[in-house]
Amino acid sequence: MLRIAMLGAGRVGQVHARSVVAHPEAELALVVDPIEAAATSLAATHGTRWSLDPQDAFEDASIDAVIIGTPTNTHTEMLARAVDAGKKVLLEKPIDLDLARIDDVWARIQAKAPFVMLGFNRRFDPSFREVKERVQQGEIGMVRALRITSRDPQPPPAAYLSASGGMFKDMTIHDFDMARFQVGDMVEVSAVASDNGLDAFREANDHAQAIITMRAVSGALVTIVDSRSCAYGYDQRLEAFGDLGSLEVGNWTATSVRSASATRTEAAGPLLNFFLERYLPAFQNELDEFVQAIKADRAPAVGFADGRAALVLAEAANESVATGRVVKVG
Amino acid sequence: MLRIAMLGAGRVGQVHARSVVAHPEAELALVVDPIEAAATSLAATHGTRWSLDPQDAFEDASIDAVIIGTPTNTHTEMLARAVDAGKKVLLEKPIDLDLARIDDVWARIQAKAPFVMLGFNRRFDPSFREVKERVQQGEIGMVRALRITSRDPQPPPAAYLSASGGMFKDMTIHDFDMARFQVGDMVEVSAVASDNGLDAFREANDHAQAIITMRAVSGALVTIVDSRSCAYGYDQRLEAFGDLGSLEVGNWTATSVRSASATRTEAAGPLLNFFLERYLPAFQNELDEFVQAIKADRAPAVGFADGRAALVLAEAANESVATGRVVKVG
Amino acid sequence: MLRIAMLGAGRVGQVHARSVVAHPEAELALVVDPIEAAATSLAATHGTRWSLDPQDAFEDASIDAVIIGTPTNTHTEMLARAVDAGKKVLLEKPIDLDLARIDDVWARIQAKAPFVMLGFNRRFDPSFREVKERVQQGEIGMVRALRITSRDPQPPPAAYLSASGGMFKDMTIHDFDMARFQVGDMVEVSAVASDNGLDAFREANDHAQAIITMRAVSGALVTIVDSRSCAYGYDQRLEAFGDLGSLEVGNWTATSVRSASATRTEAAGPLLNFFLERYLPAFQNELDEFVQAIKADRAPAVGFADGRAALVLAEAANESVATGRVVKVG
Amino acid sequence: MLRIAMLGAGRVGQVHARSVVAHPEAELALVVDPIEAAATSLAATHGTRWSLDPQDAFEDASIDAVIIGTPTNTHTEMLARAVDAGKKVLLEKPIDLDLARIDDVWARIQAKAPFVMLGFNRRFDPSFREVKERVQQGEIGMVRALRITSRDPQPPPAAYLSASGGMFKDMTIHDFDMARFQVGDMVEVSAVASDNGLDAFREANDHAQAIITMRAVSGALVTIVDSRSCAYGYDQRLEAFGDLGSLEVGNWTATSVRSASATRTEAAGPLLNFFLERYLPAFQNELDEFVQAIKADRAPAVGFADGRAALVLAEAANESVATGRVVKVG
Repeated sequence: MLRIAMLGAGRVGQVHARSVVAHPEAELALVVDPIEAAATSLAATHGTRWSLDPQDAFEDASIDAVIIGTPTNTHTEMLARAVDAGKKVLLEKPIDLDLARIDDVWARIQAKAPFVMLGFNRRFDPSFREVKERVQQGEIGMVRALRITSRDPQPPPAAYLSASGGMFKDMTIHDFDMARFQVGDMVEVSAVASDNGLDAFREANDHAQAIITMRAVSGALVTIVDSRSCAYGYDQRLEAFGDLGSLEVGNWTATSVRSASATRTEAAGPLLNFFLERYLPAFQNELDEFVQAIKADRAPAVGFADGRAALVLAEAANESVATGRVVKVG
Repeated sequence: MLRIAMLGAGRVGQVHARSVVAHPEAELALVVDPIEAAATSLAATHGTRWSLDPQDAFEDASIDAVIIGTPTNTHTEMLARAVDAGKKVLLEKPIDLDLARIDDVWARIQAKAPFVMLGFNRRFDPSFREVKERVQQGEIGMVRALRITSRDPQPPPAAYLSASGGMFKDMTIHDFDMARFQVGDMVEVSAVASDNGLDAFREANDHAQAIITMRAVSGALVTIVDSRSCAYGYDQRLEAFGDLGSLEVGNWTATSVRSASATRTEAAGPLLNFFLERYLPAFQNELDEFVQAIKADRAPAVGFADGRAALVLAEAANESVATGRVVKVG
Repeated sequence: MLRIAMLGAGRVGQVHARSVVAHPEAELALVVDPIEAAATSLAATHGTRWSLDPQDAFEDASIDAVIIGTPTNTHTEMLARAVDAGKKVLLEKPIDLDLARIDDVWARIQAKAPFVMLGFNRRFDPSFREVKERVQQGEIGMVRALRITSRDPQPPPAAYLSASGGMFKDMTIHDFDMARFQVGDMVEVSAVASDNGLDAFREANDHAQAIITMRAVSGALVTIVDSRSCAYGYDQRLEAFGDLGSLEVGNWTATSVRSASATRTEAAGPLLNFFLERYLPAFQNELDEFVQAIKADRAPAVGFADGRAALVLAEAANESVATGRVVKVG
Repeated sequence: MLRIAMLGAGRVGQVHARSVVAHPEAELALVVDPIEAAATSLAATHGTRWSLDPQDAFEDASIDAVIIGTPTNTHTEMLARAVDAGKKVLLEKPIDLDLARIDDVWARIQAKAPFVMLGFNRRFDPSFREVKERVQQGEIGMVRALRITSRDPQPPPAAYLSASGGMFKDMTIHDFDMARFQVGDMVEVSAVASDNGLDAFREANDHAQAIITMRAVSGALVTIVDSRSCAYGYDQRLEAFGDLGSLEVGNWTATSVRSASATRTEAAGPLLNFFLERYLPAFQNELDEFVQAIKADRAPAVGFADGRAALVLAEAANESVATGRVVKVG
């Protein structure tokens, strides 16, 4: 059994904790959160120990690995301390909002050849994974265009927005990684965005929606269409368009019921509400990859460099919005 | 140019007239209807001649063919006179409500080896035809089950009901023919029906809905689910289920628009309203088969015997409802 | 925590065991199977105790409830002994293949007002449940027709067939219950069936496919289309057709990927393979109902009488196939 | 009857000719094409007169209107001569490849307040029209994002490419107009494109695919995803995303058949091949608008200014590709 400490008992920490408990080869050894109510509540739910101090995780020799789901601005410190303590790490995205700090922490830990897996859970979604596999098998030939649609059901609260690092680093970061997962590294990024006239976004100097266009090394053109709100739920789609055909990932509804009435036919229900519902299997598969890679003593499927690369794209998108220019990357 | 007279200027007559006019190798030479307003109106629409008396069609040597779309109880007489006059005939379904009269008229005309095509337009619908062709090509292997759904948007008026010959001879007749078109002749028929507690049907001793089950000579089991009303429009579906897979014909909407909102996703519009809209291409293809078969001097794809066979199944269904027994046919 | 013993460590026993372990208010206290390898394997998987003798479950005062997933011919004995021992019972379908034995066991236990829940897991499927709820809310008006499609991916082995009690009691039993769940009790049953010319079914005097038609007390007409094999996977659909519209339950695929190529568009993947995959959430919800009903000291949502009623319909269907007649029930 | 001369007997001329003939209030009075074989063939098909010289149309006082479907580089001359001759004009897109010539011809004819309708047939497609109408009725609230997908089944021949004016003026022009039709005028255009490594496009200095991003005056962000080839047919989709929901236009297949097999389910057939099939009703509706506007002596729904505006967007897209910058328009 792999003994895992969960650092951070917030929303994503709760998801990871559940996956750990359900995994036959993993054990939730400790929950850490500086907010006592959060730590005790999550620990109680799963009948495990808790602490207010991550040092308790790092110093506990019986703990093999930590999942870092703390606030973004603590990520690099937690990562460095975990690596120093010899722990395997699953680190939530983004690594940090600042590329310099990312490079600093890497410089500090790289000599240890650390095991660091990045929490890009969508790579482990069965549908997105199937697309990649079928593309690799040549089913649709060379991929010429990739289209990602990503719309959250509701915008985050203003307080969240101000600390988020902006849409591209907070939300689109997943889409940047998905684009790299599907078609590899990028050479150009351009982006347009809008606050949709909403005060919350304007005051945060942030976007309500954005369209990002990228050119991959492979020549594929990538479109990301993002929105911070979506009336019909959590819209998560992808289209890979190749010389021989296309593969599309559609949305999920809670049931397979379709209704017909005098005014409409084939109507499905609303989409699965948000990422906890939509990506539940992805979180579980992600944890399994974490466990299997550690067991096999191999590198995880998604690593520190992937976390950095996604942030580079986010910064390029910010620059493109600011300058109205295509930005070269890589 | 094939010169055609249209006998009957009612709803189906209007559909046929339009198909004739649009056909590059056919010409609408005459419209006949005892109701002067009907005859003149349809003739005027297409700029052709009209008459109150079918004899004008039969005696006109320049007329090659007639389409019989008169009331059902005049079909056999019209057919006999048309054949006597040497005209090619496209006869609307059903041939007659009475099997004895059907056999009588055939006895009278068969020596002339008449060209008689039956108006089972659904055989010419591109989707139903595609199913048959793909089945013949072996795509789904041996067909084990066939399912036909047929629901009219609204029940006919009471006056129509009383003269209709009942649901099985009036409406299900199309489905009986479709079943034979897809899987061949039948050996057993059973049926259950309901008036849904509605006076109109009870008073006409008729059904608001019915389920007919048949066994084909091939061994395939057939289900027909019929209803005289359907809130969401004209529901016309079919499923052929075989050893290697299935082929399903779905419904059509007027546009390809799908909507999503807080309460539903992927909602299509209402179905095409009724048979004039849904089977417009089928009527056109049917007329083309009429023209091509005459031109090539060959038998039409659907003939008198098919019209008789469908009525035999309708009578068996009536008997099954009355006796609660499976009825052997053929 | 509700302490549960699992009687029977076969396929369905494994499913239930997993649900018990995953349920926050239930505990798998004991696994019983006369085949030692089966008992020990399942017990080991979940780190619990095992026994070859159900008496160990009945005599253990710490055990609150048992799930009976043993061979059908032992159901009534297990049920009686469990009730005598004061255990709450979740009993797999069918109660027994013989109505007399069903009535006997009930006569024996009824004075104890036993808690007996029947394992009709499909009632707990979110999609079927949603249909029932929306019907109850009046969305589609009075239900006039109900259509159930149920096709297994592959026929069971010959050995299974011979002990199964026949298609209607073994497989269609779920559909009979679903029909009652959706539109209530029945008054008439008729059925046609075919062995599709296959020796395995002919030798077992059983069916490869069947169509069952029923009339409900409510007046609704019900069609069940069943097949023991289906090339494209486990086909589980339902349509409730009412005066104001329809509600349809469609199939599930493993991912939401759709593909397009030169020969086809919008192609989804194969269906979820079989009941373990398709009805996993249903099994979990079923167990939750079992736990909640026990906790609340109320009757379960589906009881002994429902198990008996489904068998009555299966016997009527058998009689209809044998006689070619509509059979009255209830 | 409106008497119409068709100038140009090529592919689009043939489509228009058929619409004219089928229209109850229009008559095909003359077919003009300098290639005698083309002129005579089209005239013979519809039993009308032909000429090699457009002057015959302009000088014929019995001719009310002309449809200009000649090569693009003759459009402005034909338009000017037709207006001078007092004819109503339906002009195929683009008006011209050069904005200066467009402005010149307008300067020359505007004093005559000419009736000039532009051949943006997609505005008359029932699905795109339905989206616009439902948006106007407020169904999805304020439109925030519009997405247009437009993929031709096969690239045009090299000879066509070299004279086409480039992808944006030749193909995307329709999408620029559709964007304006749905969300109004634009303020910013940016575009990226690729020749996909194909010689034909590189040599023509043209694109195999492109992504165009625009910002509308309304604030809506527009994405156009275009490709000169598409393995699965003519891909024509649109999504309007608003505050209250979305409306999507999907593709059309020739039949409603769906197939299931061991490897796939719900597979539809290939898409309608190309614009002649996909937009047949749109061409017919377009002609009807031409006729009705003339009859009612009102401006057509889409005019000269719309043709010019689309070309302005095409030029901006060209500039954006060349400079890597967002280009301001309007």
